[in-house]
Amino acid sequence: MARARLRDLGITIGKLPPGGNNAITDVPGVWVGHHSLVYNEPRCARTGVTVILPRQDTSREDHVFAGFHALNGNGEMTGLLWVKESGMLGSPIALTNTSQVGIVRDALTEYTVREHGGAGFRLPVVAETWDGWLNDIDAFHLDKGHVFEAIAEARPGPVPEGNVGGGTGMICHDFKGGIGTASRLVACESGQFTVGALVQANHGERGDLRVDGLPVGCEIGLELVPSPWEDMQSSSSIVVIIATDAPLLPVQCKRLAQRATIGMARAGGIGHNGSGDLFLAFATGNHLPAKAGCTLPLAMIPHHHLNPFFYAVAESVEEAILNAMTAAETMLGYQGHTAQELPLDLLQQVMAKYQV
Amino acid sequence: MARARLRDLGITIGKLPPGGNNAITDVPGVWVGHHSLVYNEPRCARTGVTVILPRQDTSREDHVFAGFHALNGNGEMTGLLWVKESGMLGSPIALTNTSQVGIVRDALTEYTVREHGGAGFRLPVVAETWDGWLNDIDAFHLDKGHVFEAIAEARPGPVPEGNVGGGTGMICHDFKGGIGTASRLVACESGQFTVGALVQANHGERGDLRVDGLPVGCEIGLELVPSPWEDMQSSSSIVVIIATDAPLLPVQCKRLAQRATIGMARAGGIGHNGSGDLFLAFATGNHLPAKAGCTLPLAMIPHHHLNPFFYAVAESVEEAILNAMTAAETMLGYQGHTAQELPLDLLQQVMAKYQV
Amino acid sequence: MARARLRDLGITIGKLPPGGNNAITDVPGVWVGHHSLVYNEPRCARTGVTVILPRQDTSREDHVFAGFHALNGNGEMTGLLWVKESGMLGSPIALTNTSQVGIVRDALTEYTVREHGGAGFRLPVVAETWDGWLNDIDAFHLDKGHVFEAIAEARPGPVPEGNVGGGTGMICHDFKGGIGTASRLVACESGQFTVGALVQANHGERGDLRVDGLPVGCEIGLELVPSPWEDMQSSSSIVVIIATDAPLLPVQCKRLAQRATIGMARAGGIGHNGSGDLFLAFATGNHLPAKAGCTLPLAMIPHHHLNPFFYAVAESVEEAILNAMTAAETMLGYQGHTAQELPLDLLQQVMAKYQV
Amino acid sequence: MARARLRDLGITIGKLPPGGNNAITDVPGVWVGHHSLVYNEPRCARTGVTVILPRQDTSREDHVFAGFHALNGNGEMTGLLWVKESGMLGSPIALTNTSQVGIVRDALTEYTVREHGGAGFRLPVVAETWDGWLNDIDAFHLDKGHVFEAIAEARPGPVPEGNVGGGTGMICHDFKGGIGTASRLVACESGQFTVGALVQANHGERGDLRVDGLPVGCEIGLELVPSPWEDMQSSSSIVVIIATDAPLLPVQCKRLAQRATIGMARAGGIGHNGSGDLFLAFATGNHLPAKAGCTLPLAMIPHHHLNPFFYAVAESVEEAILNAMTAAETMLGYQGHTAQELPLDLLQQVMAKYQV
Repeated sequence: MARARLRDLGITIGKLPPGGNNAITDVPGVWVGHHSLVYNEPRCARTGVTVILPRQDTSREDHVFAGFHALNGNGEMTGLLWVKESGMLGSPIALTNTSQVGIVRDALTEYTVREHGGAGFRLPVVAETWDGWLNDIDAFHLDKGHVFEAIAEARPGPVPEGNVGGGTGMICHDFKGGIGTASRLVACESGQFTVGALVQANHGERGDLRVDGLPVGCEIGLELVPSPWEDMQSSSSIVVIIATDAPLLPVQCKRLAQRATIGMARAGGIGHNGSGDLFLAFATGNHLPAKAGCTLPLAMIPHHHLNPFFYAVAESVEEAILNAMTAAETMLGYQGHTAQELPLDLLQQVMAKYQV
Repeated sequence: MARARLRDLGITIGKLPPGGNNAITDVPGVWVGHHSLVYNEPRCARTGVTVILPRQDTSREDHVFAGFHALNGNGEMTGLLWVKESGMLGSPIALTNTSQVGIVRDALTEYTVREHGGAGFRLPVVAETWDGWLNDIDAFHLDKGHVFEAIAEARPGPVPEGNVGGGTGMICHDFKGGIGTASRLVACESGQFTVGALVQANHGERGDLRVDGLPVGCEIGLELVPSPWEDMQSSSSIVVIIATDAPLLPVQCKRLAQRATIGMARAGGIGHNGSGDLFLAFATGNHLPAKAGCTLPLAMIPHHHLNPFFYAVAESVEEAILNAMTAAETMLGYQGHTAQELPLDLLQQVMAKYQV
Repeated sequence: MARARLRDLGITIGKLPPGGNNAITDVPGVWVGHHSLVYNEPRCARTGVTVILPRQDTSREDHVFAGFHALNGNGEMTGLLWVKESGMLGSPIALTNTSQVGIVRDALTEYTVREHGGAGFRLPVVAETWDGWLNDIDAFHLDKGHVFEAIAEARPGPVPEGNVGGGTGMICHDFKGGIGTASRLVACESGQFTVGALVQANHGERGDLRVDGLPVGCEIGLELVPSPWEDMQSSSSIVVIIATDAPLLPVQCKRLAQRATIGMARAGGIGHNGSGDLFLAFATGNHLPAKAGCTLPLAMIPHHHLNPFFYAVAESVEEAILNAMTAAETMLGYQGHTAQELPLDLLQQVMAKYQV
Repeated sequence: MARARLRDLGITIGKLPPGGNNAITDVPGVWVGHHSLVYNEPRCARTGVTVILPRQDTSREDHVFAGFHALNGNGEMTGLLWVKESGMLGSPIALTNTSQVGIVRDALTEYTVREHGGAGFRLPVVAETWDGWLNDIDAFHLDKGHVFEAIAEARPGPVPEGNVGGGTGMICHDFKGGIGTASRLVACESGQFTVGALVQANHGERGDLRVDGLPVGCEIGLELVPSPWEDMQSSSSIVVIIATDAPLLPVQCKRLAQRATIGMARAGGIGHNGSGDLFLAFATGNHLPAKAGCTLPLAMIPHHHLNPFFYAVAESVEEAILNAMTAAETMLGYQGHTAQELPLDLLQQVMAKYQV
């Protein structure tokens, strides 16, 4: 479904090297699965669900540390009260549309019941962005089985991007958006680590889009590639999931989460009023058995080693947003609405024009 | 279903007068509806859903201000990101069990679609406590229709308490718990107002229970009234909804929400690790049209007039918790588990013993 | 200066055993020092400063984890932005009055410069409550030398309570207040630990005061012991410092900090609008070298072992507040204002009356 | 002291028009005053204080609404607990260096005592960044009189930028930094308003500096203009003050404050670990008498009109940071350390090179 990745076009973001797949799955143990629903009858579906497993399928018994930041809270991410209270995450993370958060949440609980006898973590993390322009969102297409299929599809390695899973019907900077991912390798005094980001990008205005600082959204204006919207409006929301294998504490995960704002801002996001710009970071470097009977041994990277992680988050998020757009293909959907893809040739022309 | 209210027993909490019904519905426009599921076949159900309408059924078009506080975040309340970001609430509030949050959330969205053409608020507030001791929680009993019925049942006036709605299968201080409510009349320099609280009480240990400061939980120990649990464990979670007709701003609603801790502490709560102690306060005194085209006129009670409100919240929450227990009847449920009611005669004897 | 401690009067709070000194200094390495200013010329001084050293005088090089909670934020505690961001604390903690926060803060920095060549932690934690009824607060009595003297006085062992240090001119529940402390021993699956609290108590109304749940403030009303205030007003603010030697993470310190509300509520506090009810908890169980060159080894008590810590905090804070009042002596101060001490005989009579 | 403003060089940021002075003082009633200390004997001073009066000198009696966000909390801003609790601000705001926060805080209190008989707001807002490379920070140069002079100097109209006031000794993106300001005019359905920002810019690495998205920091590398630092290090901290005359509520001020991150990110900031990136926004459009005796009438701009404000903040902050650098002149300071100014001719050459 993907057309290209940004680096395929010769465009590089930032100064840090990417991981092997330039994907969130470069963090060992992080698996991603999609399930997409695309059909026109009986009601138009352009939606789906994406599942991220923080530690393959074992995070229920062996939690990870996590932290959260909202640039703008016009959206939903369940499960955050316990993330904030405990700094821990013990469930898969799922991304879908605004009206399917509930069914996905209950499906993750039912999955726990079915696969694990009901034991364990009952506060799953499910986030959403709104796909109601291309998808008949009031049809509530998704059922629990689709969530189980996404979990079954989860795997390491390259991650499908663009019009897939939760990102199927999304729109970004007035181009077709969706799922994107990227990663960076980090070297600091504490060692070598990987940081990865996955976004469900459904935000931003055309004129604000920047690629490596250059005003691509102005250069490829609405007169060249029409807006998906009938009347100009701010589209909305981006969910960012950040993963690292570094032994970070919850406060440090929160620090990483907030740096998603930097990457988003570089690409032209501003956090519109109608947007749910929700950033969750988790770190797998410590093991947190759910039923620990005594004090747990942990490791912590000193705060003053974290700057390279901040750059890694900013770069990964910036590139993941752009990957979502270079991957996504033009989509015709609900009520004849169309979201045009970012034209790759025009993008390359603009970048070349500013090359000096 | 209710046996008695605390005041029926001659026990008074605090110094402020209650409203006409001594219930959250004393705040004009606040309606409450329950739907309970109690049956043994095919799988044991002791659960339900409770709906609170902040402004009858118009909060979708005319939002209220709201604020939130968690004493302990081992629980779920959806919709909080927008409450925090905007200070506004535009949906019904629903209370249910841990595994039914998703279906209730989607039902509230579907209700909006069905009744209001899908327009408006899509981030509903649904909170939970865990009823899995008396209820076969993995049966996922609730469906969307039950939520619609609870909304249809919503009304002003006296509120059924104890084993009803979301509170059906709850346990509090090792007695049978459930839904409770209370209210207080507030007089301050800014005028006369009402504060009401509704709780879904499912928290606390026996020995910690206090009534008006007196150690009722020690006096009516586990040797007199057995624990519902096979092995001693901390039961978990209380959700508190606070309403007022005063024109409070979001920061002020948050201040009220935090005072629920005071009322809960007076009755013996401490916020156990496994507990989701989640407090949401809303204020109907300002009108916030969802589609306002210009600057909105508001009113605000000065912060230095708020002390009576803080007392009103503390007293209402303390009494609402106790009302939940005096109302609730002994329940036999899942796998033969039994939660004994708080014996009213013993309660009165203890109170009399300390009367001086 | 102290008259008695609560336990000297035969009154016991809670169910956990206290540490050897029933003081925050029972946590190994925690030292406390006071410097008090009490004189009438040239301007009336009833003020001072109290210093708490988290790890003797080494927290600058070996930080502790910390977390914060405000029940009500009408007050000042400097240094919190870094506590929140990093979860770490690397300075002494000082308590003084509202108008002396600045000089104390700069003194702590100057102390670092003088004693440690300026290296290290520059964001010290200084908190305040308002002593302007008994003390001529606009005289700005304190200078940097007084802070150095308090640091020099810091030591382990018993802690002077009542009218000392930062607590010199404070008023609590309309009796003379000031500094109080208490501690508890905690046993959990992770081992044996100590929790201690120190309060600068300057809050509360007479009628709200409870001792072990009993309505002491009503029984010893303003007709028996007059209010310090000319016109009835809510006095204001309590600062609580909580220490433990357990290896807690920052999120866990924050959880402990919030439980100070429980102890305060049990004693009759409600968090008045004008009050700065500020709670800081730190844990010395992990070592965090300021200049760590590689990943740090840590330990963490699992969250599900924390309930005994929550009880320990609630009990310690409740008893520390009461200790502040039983220790403090009647004080005549600025403009002839007088704050009467809590009469110990009346207190014992009330407690006996309710004994059953 | 200023060399130029960015617009003098023909460089424009963003799409919104600036106010008359392109300064925070374009918001009616906002006054700014500086006091600078620059001398070599007896100890080297390159420091000062900047004061922002939110409503001329009346904010003590007529508070403003305010909100805060920290991108990174390695810094100090006093007074925030009450800003968070109440959403209100009633003091001048002062900016200085890290070691002078205390004296400035107490000076603001003393000013209240002297000018206003001690009545009123006692929780002033003072923020800092670290100037210890150019300034002998351990000399604690500032005294209360300097703060009073800055207040006396406060006025509307053009604001001196660069090496003045609190910004005297600051370094930004490895060029000389300091104070900068900018403003934007906002039109929305609720009317016409002004947004202004003032920064004390002391953050960022050379290679990250961007001007209107273009990689100026790479083009004017350390080989062209040497770093001020002997060994490469992350310099630290930016304080941003945002003002508007719009009738915004506290939650809305907080939303504006967070958008400072966007402007900072566009210019190349990332929020280093050692940085205190502290953003405070206030809104003068409502009047909040300190001693209100009854309910206050307010106005509120609906949230869905706020997008233009978000752009205005981002653009103002981005331009204010750049103005700080174009204004600041090369400074020789403590121990012979030198911070080079941003060369304006090179800046213009780089911008021209990318002009297409």
